[in-house]
Amino acid sequence: MERSYITMEKLSTQPYKGTRDFYPEEMKRRNWFFGKIRETLELCAYDEYNGPMLESLELYAAKSGDELAREQTYNFTDRGGRNLAIRPEMTPSVARMVAAKLGELNFPLRWFSIPNMYRYERPQRGRLREFWQLNVDLFGCDTYEADLDVIESAIAILRAFGADETMFKVHINNRRFFNDVIASICGTDADGAKKISKVVDRKNKVPRDAYVKDMTELGLFEAQIEKIDALYTMGVREATAVCPESVGSMELVSLFDALEAMGLDKYCMFDFGIIRGLDYYTGTVFEVFDEAPENNRAMFGGGRYDNLVGLFAKNAKISGVGYGMGDVTLENFLETHNLLPDFYGSGKKVLVARFDDVPVEKYTDIVDTLRSGGIVTGLYTGIKKFGKQIDYAVKGGYSHVVIMGGSELERGVVKVKNLDTREECECNLSELADIISGGKGA
Amino acid sequence: MERSYITMEKLSTQPYKGTRDFYPEEMKRRNWFFGKIRETLELCAYDEYNGPMLESLELYAAKSGDELAREQTYNFTDRGGRNLAIRPEMTPSVARMVAAKLGELNFPLRWFSIPNMYRYERPQRGRLREFWQLNVDLFGCDTYEADLDVIESAIAILRAFGADETMFKVHINNRRFFNDVIASICGTDADGAKKISKVVDRKNKVPRDAYVKDMTELGLFEAQIEKIDALYTMGVREATAVCPESVGSMELVSLFDALEAMGLDKYCMFDFGIIRGLDYYTGTVFEVFDEAPENNRAMFGGGRYDNLVGLFAKNAKISGVGYGMGDVTLENFLETHNLLPDFYGSGKKVLVARFDDVPVEKYTDIVDTLRSGGIVTGLYTGIKKFGKQIDYAVKGGYSHVVIMGGSELERGVVKVKNLDTREECECNLSELADIISGGKGA
Repeated sequence: MERSYITMEKLSTQPYKGTRDFYPEEMKRRNWFFGKIRETLELCAYDEYNGPMLESLELYAAKSGDELAREQTYNFTDRGGRNLAIRPEMTPSVARMVAAKLGELNFPLRWFSIPNMYRYERPQRGRLREFWQLNVDLFGCDTYEADLDVIESAIAILRAFGADETMFKVHINNRRFFNDVIASICGTDADGAKKISKVVDRKNKVPRDAYVKDMTELGLFEAQIEKIDALYTMGVREATAVCPESVGSMELVSLFDALEAMGLDKYCMFDFGIIRGLDYYTGTVFEVFDEAPENNRAMFGGGRYDNLVGLFAKNAKISGVGYGMGDVTLENFLETHNLLPDFYGSGKKVLVARFDDVPVEKYTDIVDTLRSGGIVTGLYTGIKKFGKQIDYAVKGGYSHVVIMGGSELERGVVKVKNLDTREECECNLSELADIISGGKGA
Repeated sequence: MERSYITMEKLSTQPYKGTRDFYPEEMKRRNWFFGKIRETLELCAYDEYNGPMLESLELYAAKSGDELAREQTYNFTDRGGRNLAIRPEMTPSVARMVAAKLGELNFPLRWFSIPNMYRYERPQRGRLREFWQLNVDLFGCDTYEADLDVIESAIAILRAFGADETMFKVHINNRRFFNDVIASICGTDADGAKKISKVVDRKNKVPRDAYVKDMTELGLFEAQIEKIDALYTMGVREATAVCPESVGSMELVSLFDALEAMGLDKYCMFDFGIIRGLDYYTGTVFEVFDEAPENNRAMFGGGRYDNLVGLFAKNAKISGVGYGMGDVTLENFLETHNLLPDFYGSGKKVLVARFDDVPVEKYTDIVDTLRSGGIVTGLYTGIKKFGKQIDYAVKGGYSHVVIMGGSELERGVVKVKNLDTREECECNLSELADIISGGKGA
């Protein structure tokens, strides 16, 4: 019974629920879009890091509270009695890493990572159990310039994929502004404003009646509720004018001024509806929306938070601003807007056909010459009829087949067949790379 | 008590035992060497794939037997009662993936993957709990040409890192030859040869006396034991001549003939001591040794196996040949032979300094111009004294600092400081990228 998990039946070929197999075609796509992200962020002087897939469970329990740690996290106890979790998010890991080298690190840090992570959820569109998540953060700078830098990087990534302002929009708000404007409209102290904020946070998720009832119960008049309503349709100047003395207002104005001067305002808008439930956001918050009518929703978001390393180091205070973007969401976005190139059969890829009257090593020069020229080249392994090898090349997305049978070997030539045009030509080895690269012939 | 894992003490900043944090410097190194591997294998027409980190536990229990599945695998039960394991190796996953698309895939397949995996082991040099492992396989070709292609790819990878024949050597044997030559020397049938093989497999791991005793107990004479001893010092021609009718001998001779004709024989040698315990190897087996005297040992290995998909599909028979190479081992090898470049401060990286008499968006043109020229560029976020910004740039591995205070802004110029030479020059924005790229000045 102890060995009951060993079965003699044939095993299933399906991957575990909510996870994906990446066959070469999907892998090419993933490498392509992770590559674009890396390239863009590195150009913006962000440095990549990564941490382990397994972390101590208490890292999540301490930070996110119960729900994520207990319900959504894969966790177990190792044989040494350690409570472990497969990381469901990256922030606790990066906080731990920053805390471990507080004295050595060169703040402000521009950091990013593309870890794989697991959440125990019911799989649905845009949400899987295993996913990759880009995490971009700027640590150790308290001013709006850091918020700007991070938002700029998100725009740069989407633009690198060919997306323009008709396809996405960054909705921006500020938690400090939010709290202050609520307090100023309602005439309450910080504590009272916090209670009201919780209700406002649910505004678009509950029926209007219930919202008004909750607000009334907190002592608000109709006029106050209307004033709050009005904020949702205001631009940033109008909204911040309601509460000009708030630090949040000043941050918002500085941020939008800079975005405008930089020509990035067309990608951005003020949106009082962006709050982001998590308690730890303390300043700028933003969400990036897909503008496609059939897919209109927040794709990803982030914001500013204080005291990143508080769980690890008592006297250090490092603030941060950042966002997380899931690979599934990004891929949906790129598909929706037709921004994924066709990988199959793009680029030069050469199959060197194999004939049984030629020893295998005679093909070495051909293969080496092409690879030295940077051309992807494989020798057909095994010996099959020429027609079968051509079929293999076509199915495998090869662009050219190089042919050297006994008679070509004798004459010191090779044949090249272009699989797109079906044209064939004969040449010397020295001309081969040029011909395939598109110089001449075939 | 249920929540006893939540603690109010400060959390540890250490990663979980046997795992690593990758700070930007380590990450650069890892990206560099995974990048080189990808580039090399893609040029050889190998396609990358990947699978999920979690798999059904029975995948490992069924294939590897008890030890790996029960003792060395991180496994647990999910809330739906599924027995899961964090993958400790890639072969079961790739076998599942191949079996799932048997009818669609284009055999022979040249596939590779660089998954992260976990094994529950005592951490030691070259062995960690979390590691990455390159897996290279060629599926669906039964002849020695496939073995050749795979061995060639391993040599190509090490050469791409700058390693030469003084640094590594591929030790090659053949399981068919091994079984046949034992049977022929001992005059036993296949079953008897198998028993003897198990003892021979342990030859170099047990004292000579114990080895001879075990062999004698199996009925072997001294002369037979000596004949087997002699194989360990023989070259491939001499060894295969002992048992010329073996299919394994023919495979070995064909393989070494081709390696020689291709000029790859200097990287390879026949070694009768290479057996590789796992029962599933059926033909060519090989291990790649580090030739450094202080580090002389097998770094990685692989071989040919039959019936990859047997656990999943009853009537299909796909053979394969491949190897797995751990990232920790590879990194040790590169370090030992001084093949790791210095990443810190290599390449152009520009910090645009920030002055409080210049609005942040005035720096946009500088940043955009440099990034458009492919130069890694970051604007200093926040406002600190110029000297502090220079310190930041030096510590952060920046090569240049671009300076535009109020007076430069007024005159329409910028200053460039080269942090290596400490030289400074003044120029127009249009000249900036050229100067930093190394064209002129600073």
